Amino acid sequence: MGRVASHPPVATTALPAQHSYGGVGCRQVSPARDRRGAHSHTFITFTTMHITPTLLPHVQGPADVKALIPEQLPLLAAEVRSLLLEKLSHHGGHCGPNLGMVEATIALHYVFHSPQDKIVFDVSHQSYTHKMLTGRAKAFMQADCYDDVSGYTEPSESEHDHFIIGHTSTAVSLASGLAKARDLKGEKGNVIAIVGDGSLSGGEALEGLDWAAELDSNFIVVVNDNEMSIAENHGGLYRNLADLRASHGECPNNLFRAMGLDYVYVERGNDIDALIDAFSRVKDVDHPVVVHIHTLKGKGYAPAEQDKERWHWTMPFDLATGQLTYRADGDDYNDLTARHLLRLMQSDPSLCAITAGTPGIWGWTPERRREAGNRYVDVGIAEEHAVALASGMAKAGTHPVLGLCSSFLQRTYDQLSQDLCINDSPATILVLWGSLSTMTDVTHLCHFDIPLLTGIPNLVYLAPTNKDEYLAMLDWSLTYTAHPVAIRVPVGEVAAADRPVPADFSETGKFEVVERGSDVAVIGAGNFFSLARSVCSRLQDEGLTPTLINPRFVSHIDTALLDELAATHRVVVTLEDGALTGGFGERVARHYGPTSVRTLCYGAAKEFVNRYSVPDFLQANRLTPPQVAADVLTALSEKSC
Amino acid sequence: MGRVASHPPVATTALPAQHSYGGVGCRQVSPARDRRGAHSHTFITFTTMHITPTLLPHVQGPADVKALIPEQLPLLAAEVRSLLLEKLSHHGGHCGPNLGMVEATIALHYVFHSPQDKIVFDVSHQSYTHKMLTGRAKAFMQADCYDDVSGYTEPSESEHDHFIIGHTSTAVSLASGLAKARDLKGEKGNVIAIVGDGSLSGGEALEGLDWAAELDSNFIVVVNDNEMSIAENHGGLYRNLADLRASHGECPNNLFRAMGLDYVYVERGNDIDALIDAFSRVKDVDHPVVVHIHTLKGKGYAPAEQDKERWHWTMPFDLATGQLTYRADGDDYNDLTARHLLRLMQSDPSLCAITAGTPGIWGWTPERRREAGNRYVDVGIAEEHAVALASGMAKAGTHPVLGLCSSFLQRTYDQLSQDLCINDSPATILVLWGSLSTMTDVTHLCHFDIPLLTGIPNLVYLAPTNKDEYLAMLDWSLTYTAHPVAIRVPVGEVAAADRPVPADFSETGKFEVVERGSDVAVIGAGNFFSLARSVCSRLQDEGLTPTLINPRFVSHIDTALLDELAATHRVVVTLEDGALTGGFGERVARHYGPTSVRTLCYGAAKEFVNRYSVPDFLQANRLTPPQVAADVLTALSEKSC
Repeated sequence: MGRVASHPPVATTALPAQHSYGGVGCRQVSPARDRRGAHSHTFITFTTMHITPTLLPHVQGPADVKALIPEQLPLLAAEVRSLLLEKLSHHGGHCGPNLGMVEATIALHYVFHSPQDKIVFDVSHQSYTHKMLTGRAKAFMQADCYDDVSGYTEPSESEHDHFIIGHTSTAVSLASGLAKARDLKGEKGNVIAIVGDGSLSGGEALEGLDWAAELDSNFIVVVNDNEMSIAENHGGLYRNLADLRASHGECPNNLFRAMGLDYVYVERGNDIDALIDAFSRVKDVDHPVVVHIHTLKGKGYAPAEQDKERWHWTMPFDLATGQLTYRADGDDYNDLTARHLLRLMQSDPSLCAITAGTPGIWGWTPERRREAGNRYVDVGIAEEHAVALASGMAKAGTHPVLGLCSSFLQRTYDQLSQDLCINDSPATILVLWGSLSTMTDVTHLCHFDIPLLTGIPNLVYLAPTNKDEYLAMLDWSLTYTAHPVAIRVPVGEVAAADRPVPADFSETGKFEVVERGSDVAVIGAGNFFSLARSVCSRLQDEGLTPTLINPRFVSHIDTALLDELAATHRVVVTLEDGALTGGFGERVARHYGPTSVRTLCYGAAKEFVNRYSVPDFLQANRLTPPQVAADVLTALSEKSC
Repeated sequence: MGRVASHPPVATTALPAQHSYGGVGCRQVSPARDRRGAHSHTFITFTTMHITPTLLPHVQGPADVKALIPEQLPLLAAEVRSLLLEKLSHHGGHCGPNLGMVEATIALHYVFHSPQDKIVFDVSHQSYTHKMLTGRAKAFMQADCYDDVSGYTEPSESEHDHFIIGHTSTAVSLASGLAKARDLKGEKGNVIAIVGDGSLSGGEALEGLDWAAELDSNFIVVVNDNEMSIAENHGGLYRNLADLRASHGECPNNLFRAMGLDYVYVERGNDIDALIDAFSRVKDVDHPVVVHIHTLKGKGYAPAEQDKERWHWTMPFDLATGQLTYRADGDDYNDLTARHLLRLMQSDPSLCAITAGTPGIWGWTPERRREAGNRYVDVGIAEEHAVALASGMAKAGTHPVLGLCSSFLQRTYDQLSQDLCINDSPATILVLWGSLSTMTDVTHLCHFDIPLLTGIPNLVYLAPTNKDEYLAMLDWSLTYTAHPVAIRVPVGEVAAADRPVPADFSETGKFEVVERGSDVAVIGAGNFFSLARSVCSRLQDEGLTPTLINPRFVSHIDTALLDELAATHRVVVTLEDGALTGGFGERVARHYGPTSVRTLCYGAAKEFVNRYSVPDFLQANRLTPPQVAADVLTALSEKSC
């Protein structure tokens, strides 16, 4: 999936949810995972054939599920699963998580009364069956309606969805707010949070479980334990989950009880009867309780059951063979990153790659993980810990390289500021997918990393414009000990340098003047350097001789150069592939504020956009060459000093 | 301490560390706390008299501690405690945490070999004894040297300090990085993280404990359990700690073992012999282990033992009586906030105050907490959960008001973005202490909340300029359902409005023009409105008629007004009491970028400053009336359009 990661699709429900990128295969390394082999799943795996739905067309909502007799529910599950696979094979999306939750979702709606009883899905990438059972089945039965629903819970779609959720580990806390509000208002009803085992390593989930025990009222947490994160799980708590599974919930030491919560175990988490029985027992419970269900990720589709990591999220595929029908050609930045780091590890024993549960998004396939050995660290979905760990390792003289997706980097601001940058630990952070053109679900926007990082003192944030510059910056960062360095990994087609690339970037904030002209200067950061070049060529067509600049740094500005330009330039343009508010361009605008130089800053407007067409979005934000060029001509034509 | 909070001292070691603000007294409410009464502390409390140190003057480092015979260590502890109280009574600082850790710190240095063995203190507000034993005793023995050391670990002071730490819950993760680096480099030595029970509710600490179990090598986590956070603990895990204490570590259910860690319990956590025995047993251990020590917060000073919350951190006091020698006169914004919310609760049953372990910083004394009952929620030190909880409660129609210190707000950026703002949940967030003039320790700077919050779409961030405007905004926020609202609570002297205050702030981004003039407009946000007024009066003295503006909003700009001003103004000044980079002023500079209007933006330069003199800092950033006025005159004198 490293390949897919570099060419992110823009169709919405085909977009990966948080941490929804795998490599191929799944390795077994820790005691927790070693014990997995011992658990006794007895579900019958079948090769899915198309089933013409007879029950689902009559399910307009949960009431229609309840109207079925128990004997009909397995058929409903088969119909749901068949439709899931049909849509996934044509459209792509989250495969393993949804296939594993079919029975549990049916049982939840059979036992509880949504929306009076409130069900909150963590990440909500496993909510497809929930959508089918709450009036949105058409979006799974008719190809022309596939995009009528998003890949996550969405209150604007249904009263059965309570939050827009896409990041991991948030559901317990959000749901506990619904429960607290219910109690303050003297209302009744069950509040149910569904959280996967992979999400339990995230700090917010652990904070939420800890506090939930303080609720002196109904609160149900369903822990969907499929023994997997996106890749294998990492963390000591997973040994406890393994012990709980092995003992059918009876082992004396119990993480959930240790957090003050009542506990129920369900071994047959894909058995509707067992689930209905368990949910019925906790329904209307007067205190917080965890229902730990043991499910099979990818349940019902042999390839997904066998290769859980690869099938966590998938592009369109051939249902019969499991082969992707989508093919990305050529190299990509994620794959080359892992290859490059592996090469460097051969000569640098202190180089260590760190991921927070998302190896696939930067090329760390299981084979490469094995090859890296103890120089590859997956901390689980725990970005806060990942940054602090990297800081400690850098302080102690090793070379940690932490790869984080722009959207998930948001989960660790304080650690970047306090643990890393105040301590000035020389770690390298690779910011992946930072762009307006990668993920377009509102919960996965990769727009905000420049504003977030560039406000933090000490941090050097580089935005390379091509492959050679990127690798030169990465190599340099491993030798640089003055400050932490973040690098915004380019997105899209891998392009070689068309001009010499330096090996040293120690002169913080030093911009590269690619073409020197007059009147107008266009500064294009990172991915948008190519946009800057296009703008310049249009301006040249108009008889102008624009100055073209690659700033290299988005965390600092080249004040000496900017002051020098002021003498011969009337207009300076900044282009950044991200949110405009708080970003790079505003630094330039502030610097020129006291002068007569006119500044035009381009980037994304301050708004949460969802499931957008990238070309339309760029157009709406005037981020196309003709639009920028037109604005420049207008600015130049105005009376100026 | 609410009173103190409104007049934050600027002397460094007198500054509160994270969550280091108490109210008065400590109530017992939860099962966890009820059980506390049962624990059998048998330490002898003594009233401290001054002891002339005979051993400590000879302790230049840990080797000198090791050179003592065990029988001398209790005397060393008595000398340390006497000096701690002596300095604290004159200087202020963290009292309870340091008094409770005297014996454990002596035992650590007696058993381990710092700095080869690396000791990392969480928050590090309990590291005073460590400083005394590592060559810095003079800073506790000589009044004129009190400020030679900071109140936290500081690598620039000593090779025995490994990180600058001030925020909670970070030590386990940072230390695990030292351990991982040690292993990669094939080095030896113990790595020890010291973390308090109060810090365990923080997500980063839980992420760190979970991952630490993956270390297949030496790693020691000392859990200093004094049964308290700053105030009482909240969260289900504290019931497990109570069970562990009650069973002397023998109860079958064990949070730490459930996270995959080995475990040792020490009931007599203020008994040097018991501690030396326990630390000797785990020294050079080949796997991760938790040493759970039961200590007495405030140990050795009767008032601090009896009223742990009030004595967590203290201003200077009379050693004999425990009475503060520091008196703050008049009302303060923190105290009036809690009083106001309590009044509102009488007519609004759905109003709920939420704190993340810091009730004292916004006036929530134990008495007021009792009065608020179930409308007061302390989630423990868990800012991420606090924001998600507030979002859920707001979504369900109640009125949560979350109070967070600017510095600790940083710990929950992603929850603000994802859980709160994407869902547009109409919660109210009170940002406390946001200013360049409150906390001056580098780990506690309150400079960054404007850049952090104003980049998040949907969030309305208000900056009131006086008490009446503040309370009007707070009242309005509880009726506003369109978006989440954050309010930057004013700092310093409480001032009444000198002009009419509206009751409705629904017109997002609408600035208040206080005085309308021409040529130059001065926009002073929040606390800096008074600075703007002073600047204007100086400009008036120069014969100018400046326009004076209170923007009210820092999250939005009044583009209509700014465009209107462009016709009659050549210079526009922005003043904000925080970091300049990514802040409010840059929005204005960008807006005017394409025009001939000159903009001058004022705020703090992008840097981590530490233990600074506020007046000097303001001067260095040209944040005084004469400096700003002079710059304006210069700008106006330049040739312009």
